[in-house]
Amino acid sequence: MKKEEDFSEWYNEIVEETGLTDKRYPIKGMNVWPAYGWKTMLLIKTAIRREFDSRGHDEVYFPMLIPEDQFQKEKEHIKGFDAQVFWVTKAGSNDLDVNLLLRPTSETAMYPVFSLWIRSHADLPLRVYQIVNTFRYETKQTRAFIRVREMQFIEGHTCHATFEEAEAQIEEDLDIMRSVAADLCIPYRVIRRIEWDKFPGAYYTIGVDTMLPDGRALQIASIHQYRTNFSVPYEIFFEETDGSRKPVHQTTYGMSERMLGAVVAIHGDDKGLVMPPAIAPIQILVVPIPAKGNAESIYAEARKMAKHINSHGLRAHADERDIRPGNKFYYWERKGVPIRLELGKREIDEGFVTAVRRDSGKKTRISTSELIRELGILLKDMASSMLKRAEEEVKSKEFDVHDPSAIKDGYNRMQWCGAEQCGRKIEELSGASLLGTVSGEKCSGGKCVICGTATDNVVYVAKTM
Amino acid sequence: MKKEEDFSEWYNEIVEETGLTDKRYPIKGMNVWPAYGWKTMLLIKTAIRREFDSRGHDEVYFPMLIPEDQFQKEKEHIKGFDAQVFWVTKAGSNDLDVNLLLRPTSETAMYPVFSLWIRSHADLPLRVYQIVNTFRYETKQTRAFIRVREMQFIEGHTCHATFEEAEAQIEEDLDIMRSVAADLCIPYRVIRRIEWDKFPGAYYTIGVDTMLPDGRALQIASIHQYRTNFSVPYEIFFEETDGSRKPVHQTTYGMSERMLGAVVAIHGDDKGLVMPPAIAPIQILVVPIPAKGNAESIYAEARKMAKHINSHGLRAHADERDIRPGNKFYYWERKGVPIRLELGKREIDEGFVTAVRRDSGKKTRISTSELIRELGILLKDMASSMLKRAEEEVKSKEFDVHDPSAIKDGYNRMQWCGAEQCGRKIEELSGASLLGTVSGEKCSGGKCVICGTATDNVVYVAKTM
Repeated sequence: MKKEEDFSEWYNEIVEETGLTDKRYPIKGMNVWPAYGWKTMLLIKTAIRREFDSRGHDEVYFPMLIPEDQFQKEKEHIKGFDAQVFWVTKAGSNDLDVNLLLRPTSETAMYPVFSLWIRSHADLPLRVYQIVNTFRYETKQTRAFIRVREMQFIEGHTCHATFEEAEAQIEEDLDIMRSVAADLCIPYRVIRRIEWDKFPGAYYTIGVDTMLPDGRALQIASIHQYRTNFSVPYEIFFEETDGSRKPVHQTTYGMSERMLGAVVAIHGDDKGLVMPPAIAPIQILVVPIPAKGNAESIYAEARKMAKHINSHGLRAHADERDIRPGNKFYYWERKGVPIRLELGKREIDEGFVTAVRRDSGKKTRISTSELIRELGILLKDMASSMLKRAEEEVKSKEFDVHDPSAIKDGYNRMQWCGAEQCGRKIEELSGASLLGTVSGEKCSGGKCVICGTATDNVVYVAKTM
Repeated sequence: MKKEEDFSEWYNEIVEETGLTDKRYPIKGMNVWPAYGWKTMLLIKTAIRREFDSRGHDEVYFPMLIPEDQFQKEKEHIKGFDAQVFWVTKAGSNDLDVNLLLRPTSETAMYPVFSLWIRSHADLPLRVYQIVNTFRYETKQTRAFIRVREMQFIEGHTCHATFEEAEAQIEEDLDIMRSVAADLCIPYRVIRRIEWDKFPGAYYTIGVDTMLPDGRALQIASIHQYRTNFSVPYEIFFEETDGSRKPVHQTTYGMSERMLGAVVAIHGDDKGLVMPPAIAPIQILVVPIPAKGNAESIYAEARKMAKHINSHGLRAHADERDIRPGNKFYYWERKGVPIRLELGKREIDEGFVTAVRRDSGKKTRISTSELIRELGILLKDMASSMLKRAEEEVKSKEFDVHDPSAIKDGYNRMQWCGAEQCGRKIEELSGASLLGTVSGEKCSGGKCVICGTATDNVVYVAKTM
């Protein structure tokens, strides 16, 4: 299946064929992670962990089950999740006195404990994150990494003395996003969600959206300013220096396996996956090209070369299987390995190796003595080319649109007065969603596409995954 | 609370006071992992991951929920777990058609998929592992890390063409155990479980037991030979080179957060935890000792020293809090940091630092120019002293016992004919459990302590946690 012809089918095929996921598990929307997919996901988690750790956030772990009564303390929150929750009602042969739910996200698991952890201003800021499995009973069609019922999730939770400090945390979250997206070579937009599309219980929600090849937007992360919406019902109070008792201000930051879905969708091509170097389980493949009689020594050289590369902190693999080199090329191209090194007798004799880039197919001759340095440059160049190409593709999918019934595949920017009824009307006419507004993007002298009221407000509209 | 006086109370206090766990979560046996505990657990997982990866096992991830009908295929297995399972019966407001259970272990999640993955002998051996949360509805008294309802679990699963290859895998598992136990500085015994104490569905079970200070044995890992007990009902067959279809031979290997419980129990003392260097979140604490007027420069030197140590792959932390050095000593001693470095004006002027070992309290003067090398030696020495001390303690708790009603705290070796009724009688008279037999440990010319039949068979008997 070609990506251009049927993106959706292409995606569904490639994620399974390349060993990223196995959808044959007997529960809908709960997929198996085979080794190649799981290694990639672990590398994404490692990249995110590095960003949190280096900024002084602490990794923690809260239980997966939440008692029903804890869950119900914040009213908007439960309304938002009620239909999506899996319930544990029995253990052994006993009916439970209090039903337990599988975390869809961990606010209601953490906040009763935060109220014990935080006593005074000296306990603030509290900045923790966890890397966990979460559960949502999705009733829409499921899709690997993008809409699943058990989701790999990274959630940051912070508590601050003031609203301003919480706002500063959100700025830091956006720094983290910049670094992680650079690793994934993924362009994204920071979009403030419309009031009626906020996270349940949030004061405001920022969506981090990326644009998929079929012109649909995909939220890959979200950042929420809670103000004191949770800290009041969960009684997370602190004593100020002046002795007064105040609720903390909270933020959260969520990222998920959707990031992997975006990587597949944005970078993959008709030959298969294209793995961003930072998260490629194998960055460099070494393929021995034996001729008659010298197979053993060429294989040994290839093995040696992979070992040498690994000792410098890169991830290399020598494919020593007894199949033709062409089959190896095809196999690993499909899995998206960034760089292939071809090593035959002539290369060994003359002290070089032929490097082939997965994204461009471009061949380079690298002197063996410069191998590590040159591989570093190649990987870096490949990452920036991947990001650049993706950015150009997004640019070709941005439109200023005046007629909501004539939207295109991609981001449709429209002027909107901000009234809910006009917003709902845009969604009705376009059959798409209001993603929200982008900070700083205004258009002076325009009029709302629905009611005609003068406004400089610009809203992003797109179909979503 | 002193460890000698009331081990159980001492343990319960210390795990919470030092930030390894927080038991105030509102579900019994499901505890919160605060940063210090979680970092330690992550380091244990990292050590285990390294052992599996270096031997070519692949890390994977299978869904947490298992459909009831899959679970019921192996009859012994379900009998063993039936009373311990948490059941999801509802999602949103719907009753599920097929109830789902929270994995107590993942045989029944994995094996239906293995039957799809394995087609021919070329697909063997299959060797995978996963690092997950598992769930058991424990009805006995819970205890942090030792008996919990949500457990951090590492499970290895392998499939082989023959029984012999599966046996060889079990030998490899024991190699892995040796390396991991060396990191934890924990002595252990490899004990083959009695027939009626096997893992549900296993052909035989090997328990890896350690001895706690109160004389109770704690199983910290287990290895199971399944033969074809699961592969037949789950239809995991492969095509042999001769075209015949055969069930695979399987093994599993389970390790859990009990390893952390054992570390606390075995190494901790009345001052607090003693962290084995390999899994200590902070291996080296740098404490600036300021005098009047020079605080700032001493703090800066301490920070620089910690940074320098970290850049060499060790884990150091400079405590720059504005509290007295003595309070810092106490605080970090309690958390078990292996080495404390004290850095004052005299040390800086003369180019040395004072190192204090957590296990022995021994002070050493280290030249700054030799710092990294000397720290490496100190950490290594400390690890071997910790293991040696623990081994000596275990030796003092080994007894050859002839009267089952007079057992002691520790390992009680008894002669036993092997008959179930005699075994049950030993348990009844001793109020303890038959752990099983140790390969190679025989005692010729003896008699069963119950029936008097001549036997050279030796069984280990102990109270268990």
